[in-house]
Amino acid sequence: MAHGFVTSEGRAIAARVERFIRETIVPFERDPRWGMHGPSLDMVEEMRALARDAGVMTPHVPGGREHLSHRDTALVLRAAGLSPLGPVGVNVAAPDEGNMFLLGKVASAAQQTHFLAPLLQGRTRSAFLMTEPSEDNGAGSDPSMLMTTAELDGDHWVINGRKCFSTGLQGASVGIVMAKTGEGATMFLVDLPHPAIQIERVPQTIDSSMPGGHPTSRIVNLRVPTSAVLGEVGAGFRYAQVRLSPARLTHCMRWLGACTRAQEIASEYAVRRRAFGRLLIDHEGVGFMLADNRILLKQCELMIDWCADVLDSGASGTSESSMTKVSVSEALFRIADQCVQVMGGQGVTRDTIVEQVFREVRAFRIYDGPTEVHKWSLAKRIKRETLDRIE
Amino acid sequence: MAHGFVTSEGRAIAARVERFIRETIVPFERDPRWGMHGPSLDMVEEMRALARDAGVMTPHVPGGREHLSHRDTALVLRAAGLSPLGPVGVNVAAPDEGNMFLLGKVASAAQQTHFLAPLLQGRTRSAFLMTEPSEDNGAGSDPSMLMTTAELDGDHWVINGRKCFSTGLQGASVGIVMAKTGEGATMFLVDLPHPAIQIERVPQTIDSSMPGGHPTSRIVNLRVPTSAVLGEVGAGFRYAQVRLSPARLTHCMRWLGACTRAQEIASEYAVRRRAFGRLLIDHEGVGFMLADNRILLKQCELMIDWCADVLDSGASGTSESSMTKVSVSEALFRIADQCVQVMGGQGVTRDTIVEQVFREVRAFRIYDGPTEVHKWSLAKRIKRETLDRIE
Amino acid sequence: MAHGFVTSEGRAIAARVERFIRETIVPFERDPRWGMHGPSLDMVEEMRALARDAGVMTPHVPGGREHLSHRDTALVLRAAGLSPLGPVGVNVAAPDEGNMFLLGKVASAAQQTHFLAPLLQGRTRSAFLMTEPSEDNGAGSDPSMLMTTAELDGDHWVINGRKCFSTGLQGASVGIVMAKTGEGATMFLVDLPHPAIQIERVPQTIDSSMPGGHPTSRIVNLRVPTSAVLGEVGAGFRYAQVRLSPARLTHCMRWLGACTRAQEIASEYAVRRRAFGRLLIDHEGVGFMLADNRILLKQCELMIDWCADVLDSGASGTSESSMTKVSVSEALFRIADQCVQVMGGQGVTRDTIVEQVFREVRAFRIYDGPTEVHKWSLAKRIKRETLDRIE
Amino acid sequence: MAHGFVTSEGRAIAARVERFIRETIVPFERDPRWGMHGPSLDMVEEMRALARDAGVMTPHVPGGREHLSHRDTALVLRAAGLSPLGPVGVNVAAPDEGNMFLLGKVASAAQQTHFLAPLLQGRTRSAFLMTEPSEDNGAGSDPSMLMTTAELDGDHWVINGRKCFSTGLQGASVGIVMAKTGEGATMFLVDLPHPAIQIERVPQTIDSSMPGGHPTSRIVNLRVPTSAVLGEVGAGFRYAQVRLSPARLTHCMRWLGACTRAQEIASEYAVRRRAFGRLLIDHEGVGFMLADNRILLKQCELMIDWCADVLDSGASGTSESSMTKVSVSEALFRIADQCVQVMGGQGVTRDTIVEQVFREVRAFRIYDGPTEVHKWSLAKRIKRETLDRIE
Repeated sequence: MAHGFVTSEGRAIAARVERFIRETIVPFERDPRWGMHGPSLDMVEEMRALARDAGVMTPHVPGGREHLSHRDTALVLRAAGLSPLGPVGVNVAAPDEGNMFLLGKVASAAQQTHFLAPLLQGRTRSAFLMTEPSEDNGAGSDPSMLMTTAELDGDHWVINGRKCFSTGLQGASVGIVMAKTGEGATMFLVDLPHPAIQIERVPQTIDSSMPGGHPTSRIVNLRVPTSAVLGEVGAGFRYAQVRLSPARLTHCMRWLGACTRAQEIASEYAVRRRAFGRLLIDHEGVGFMLADNRILLKQCELMIDWCADVLDSGASGTSESSMTKVSVSEALFRIADQCVQVMGGQGVTRDTIVEQVFREVRAFRIYDGPTEVHKWSLAKRIKRETLDRIE
Repeated sequence: MAHGFVTSEGRAIAARVERFIRETIVPFERDPRWGMHGPSLDMVEEMRALARDAGVMTPHVPGGREHLSHRDTALVLRAAGLSPLGPVGVNVAAPDEGNMFLLGKVASAAQQTHFLAPLLQGRTRSAFLMTEPSEDNGAGSDPSMLMTTAELDGDHWVINGRKCFSTGLQGASVGIVMAKTGEGATMFLVDLPHPAIQIERVPQTIDSSMPGGHPTSRIVNLRVPTSAVLGEVGAGFRYAQVRLSPARLTHCMRWLGACTRAQEIASEYAVRRRAFGRLLIDHEGVGFMLADNRILLKQCELMIDWCADVLDSGASGTSESSMTKVSVSEALFRIADQCVQVMGGQGVTRDTIVEQVFREVRAFRIYDGPTEVHKWSLAKRIKRETLDRIE
Repeated sequence: MAHGFVTSEGRAIAARVERFIRETIVPFERDPRWGMHGPSLDMVEEMRALARDAGVMTPHVPGGREHLSHRDTALVLRAAGLSPLGPVGVNVAAPDEGNMFLLGKVASAAQQTHFLAPLLQGRTRSAFLMTEPSEDNGAGSDPSMLMTTAELDGDHWVINGRKCFSTGLQGASVGIVMAKTGEGATMFLVDLPHPAIQIERVPQTIDSSMPGGHPTSRIVNLRVPTSAVLGEVGAGFRYAQVRLSPARLTHCMRWLGACTRAQEIASEYAVRRRAFGRLLIDHEGVGFMLADNRILLKQCELMIDWCADVLDSGASGTSESSMTKVSVSEALFRIADQCVQVMGGQGVTRDTIVEQVFREVRAFRIYDGPTEVHKWSLAKRIKRETLDRIE
Repeated sequence: MAHGFVTSEGRAIAARVERFIRETIVPFERDPRWGMHGPSLDMVEEMRALARDAGVMTPHVPGGREHLSHRDTALVLRAAGLSPLGPVGVNVAAPDEGNMFLLGKVASAAQQTHFLAPLLQGRTRSAFLMTEPSEDNGAGSDPSMLMTTAELDGDHWVINGRKCFSTGLQGASVGIVMAKTGEGATMFLVDLPHPAIQIERVPQTIDSSMPGGHPTSRIVNLRVPTSAVLGEVGAGFRYAQVRLSPARLTHCMRWLGACTRAQEIASEYAVRRRAFGRLLIDHEGVGFMLADNRILLKQCELMIDWCADVLDSGASGTSESSMTKVSVSEALFRIADQCVQVMGGQGVTRDTIVEQVFREVRAFRIYDGPTEVHKWSLAKRIKRETLDRIE
């Protein structure tokens, strides 16, 4: 069995990515083109050109073919995450990373050539149109509430509905649209922009690392040929599951990288700044926060590696990725919060990335399933297992 | 004794302010002129004109003379805080509110006419230049590290140094500058803008309710006459204390208002949105967060009222305001965090003020003394009292 | 209105009780007759004789007639709680205190003479037989699950069922038994011991301050005359409510006293013991815990006083006592836990009362309604209020 | 490298131990001979006879020679910990387990024959006399405060001092005494009981799983030959380190087993008991606690395995075992606390082991270094590493 191990290839790629991020991407963090919806288009182009030169474009899919194991991916994406600009810079960011994974598993050869190849090259971006507005009582944490419909009309499907939090939709070339088809749900691949998908608005949000923001859109009579179906009709929820656990986990990996860096920045601040006659870090009130963070970072790493091993073994990892997502997102938030606190006034400015990491990780406690939804599904599993045991 | 009671005047003013905020200010929350450094100048003017018409301008200093008791002020400022725009709108915002309090206590008649009167009318804004850059190892949580100097040169003082986090400096007309003078420290009043005070930059920060931002500035050979001294030479730290406890407490009052509103918004969301077959609020995971918030809001209110009573009794309230600042800022953060979580994806957008309140309260755990500094001084007091008791 | 004030009578009684506890009861804490089910009978007698001499027997019902206001009671019971032996010593312990309150409100004159008078004199003890075994799926947090029945047979009621956690049942003279009667529930007064109420067992529990333990008993054909009905038939749940809020609150008062004392003990330890070159309290890791405790103790006091004012105003205080019970029990647990931690190895021995207070307060997070049940009912109230507001 | 793997031998032994604990030891949990200082002597004998029969005596040292790897030991000790009686029952309890480890590493052949062999056979018990009374300001968390002295007198050492928290001293046959010898410290091996080591008292403590309690003793002119020195003179602190990290970790392993069992018990309770119309576990307030526990149990397991791998690699693991000890003890406490809460009134009785596990784990947050001491040493390491990095 290959799982449970980091390969030397994975280790080498991660080292290369880490060097690239620290030397080449970190200086971009002061670039004024980095706004509240992520870096500008030309800034992304510039970073990606450098990534190609350095041989670290889409580094978790070496040669554009096979994905690294989840365990190796953990190393690579954590390195990429050391800057909030890193994942976009080397093309391992959400939602593209998850979409590439899904297309690699499910798309037809023709779909792979048309949609996947340019994504793997970092030439295009993609969006996953699944979540629906809460004011419509559409699908959020509860996917069964899906309201967007697709109806067959000859050899075309006609799709209607509203979507929101479709990260990266603005500027994306590839759209994956989830819609109800009879009993089940189906995913459709669409070239973007498309006149039938109208962006209603791009809400301001607490996070700011995602190019293309998190738009709300209206889909009006979107006609797509039957060849636009991703995989099989009616298998949408199943594919969502295929994408789900790995995508959750890659979020954990990237934000672990970001919090590792935040801890470095806060530690450096604490060994330089003095107050009340001592270095900050010599105050237990400060040192204990950094010590606590060190422990939490290790816990996050171990949970991620464990869950990656489970996925590498071929299991669906639904429960394991829930456990990991909850524990990692909550721990990373605590880490980021403590980094802010250690840095005092500096911590709430954008002079360092610490402030941003804090905001990003706050959002991560909600997307890909809020903590509460995961605990709810874990409780149901405990119930089932306990009933099995005592019967 | 007058303290310990809310007067009917206080209650009436608070009711008027609450109505004004809910009916007149809340609609401004969607105004595009509200940016990351607070509302624009013309937007402030517009809100204040309405506040004058409604008789709620500077409502805690009725008639522009006597301040209400701290206890009454708690009611009024909490009402003003129900919108993040409220405090600026009715002129009870930081740092003006604290500066007006200080000038009312210490300034000469001439200084009051020149500096205080227009502030009370809501015609000008002010800044308190105390904190110094950490890269200079200047005064932060530890005021004894003050590096800005004032030297007597004939009948003028010449001031040199750097200041940062001078909230509202951009656009302010009144500056209060703290500088070392021999053994002690002295406060100086300066008309702004002044060519000797150069704003180096206005850092981006996590909060966004304060007009004028939190600039860093350089003071180069600022010459002021001896009449610019606020109160007595060498008494700067003492006056800082006069301002300190009440100013801490008014922050608590305003943010309590904001979190009260956040709880209303989150509760309304939770009784409208459904998931997994029930209203959100009927999920214990959601309902418990709102219940917890309700308890925390009450605790905050009680701590504020208690500390206000202490201040109204004439005591300095140093320890009491530390206890209140720590417990209220930490509790409000938890409340805001839980409101975000209840609202899920909506909670991390700027569609409601909940997201902003979360960011603002994060910063409040740091300014006016980080939690750790207050705990440190409380521990010293416990040590002293315990040693007294056992000897 | 009399509420909202501490009277001079209340203050004087509290001072007398505090002196008695500190000087007379605290030395009993080393008495070997104090076992895992509280002090022995003769030890109780001894303490109570001293209490009578000192004029502090049943101090919250001065002259054996009128109860002090809840607000005054808060002062007195907090003083009594300064030792875990105090409440039993001066006859303000659970369940007697709550039972005396209930009998004072509801019992007939004859019942008061027979049952209440000796209780007020501290000559007898009582038990409240309400909770039922979980293995029977009887009434616990959910009183509607009541399984004990009372059936009318001529001019007698015949009661059958099982009860558990009937604090103090062993050795009690007065029993209040809750049973289903038709649609509602009814309370019955019984002289104890009674052959029809057989104690099955007295479980070992984590707490150890309650004489008589928390027995489980079986009630088999207990025949009582109709005059044994407390108040009206069918009004049992209403009377339970009468008793409930005040009884919850007096637990808060007593345990606040105990935790105040634990904080004193831990503070004294921390100013005497050295480690790593400094007094313990000069380590921020220790000092911050004590500072946090100081804040929490104040919060508890304020919540209790607020709720007492609500009860004194004549309101039922159902919601307010839930809020107070949750916040106070959780805060006191944190306080006790931190006192243990400050004292290190000493903290987990019975050399001081800190270890016991920790255990007792753990149980308090469960009895009189676990935290979760109170949050659940608060959430329902928030739902109702929010729906009212938005409609 | 052999580390990072569980061997099939380890797995087989662990399975055997788990079966033995569940089938044979768990029934002893209701044995009345189990008191507040652990099971009685005859009860221990009885359990150990059964363990010998089942081939699970001292299972982590198969054949009485080589210890299993730390990683394998984790599996075995976790299985043993499934009952609080398990570790004593199969002879992997503290302090014997740590003492056997130390003697295996450092003792001379003669010492191994005399002291170690009977320990490995489970025929004797041992004590580690290191900690000194806080009232003497002796060695606690800070070993440099050691006050017990050993002076050379011919070919004997004469030892004087006081010791406390010497777990298991009562009834032990082997004592390891730490004393100052000149600049350093030295460990001595002593046959117990010894007239020069007088037990002053055995304090009542919050935990109750350790036979022999945690006595305080006075050592008066204890004369031992030079052959009683364990290892080298002056190397005492170094040997304490040898014992320290593994002993910390085995505590984590055993208590992880205990909390795993507590979670099973609480889960079973929650799927059987109903309240408010549903099974307890169907209440999110209950289900979320069990879900949280499941995550925490996994985190503990991963931290333990990681630290075991570090130790198996030959590293000292000082920092890693600090990180593991803090995170595991704090997490286990939260788990135990939540199990108590899930079970309500049942949770605070001794009807199940949950109540005991809660108390035991409370103590574990203090012994082997309180959380605060570990955070302090981690902060120092972060400081050192950060200074290295930025220079």
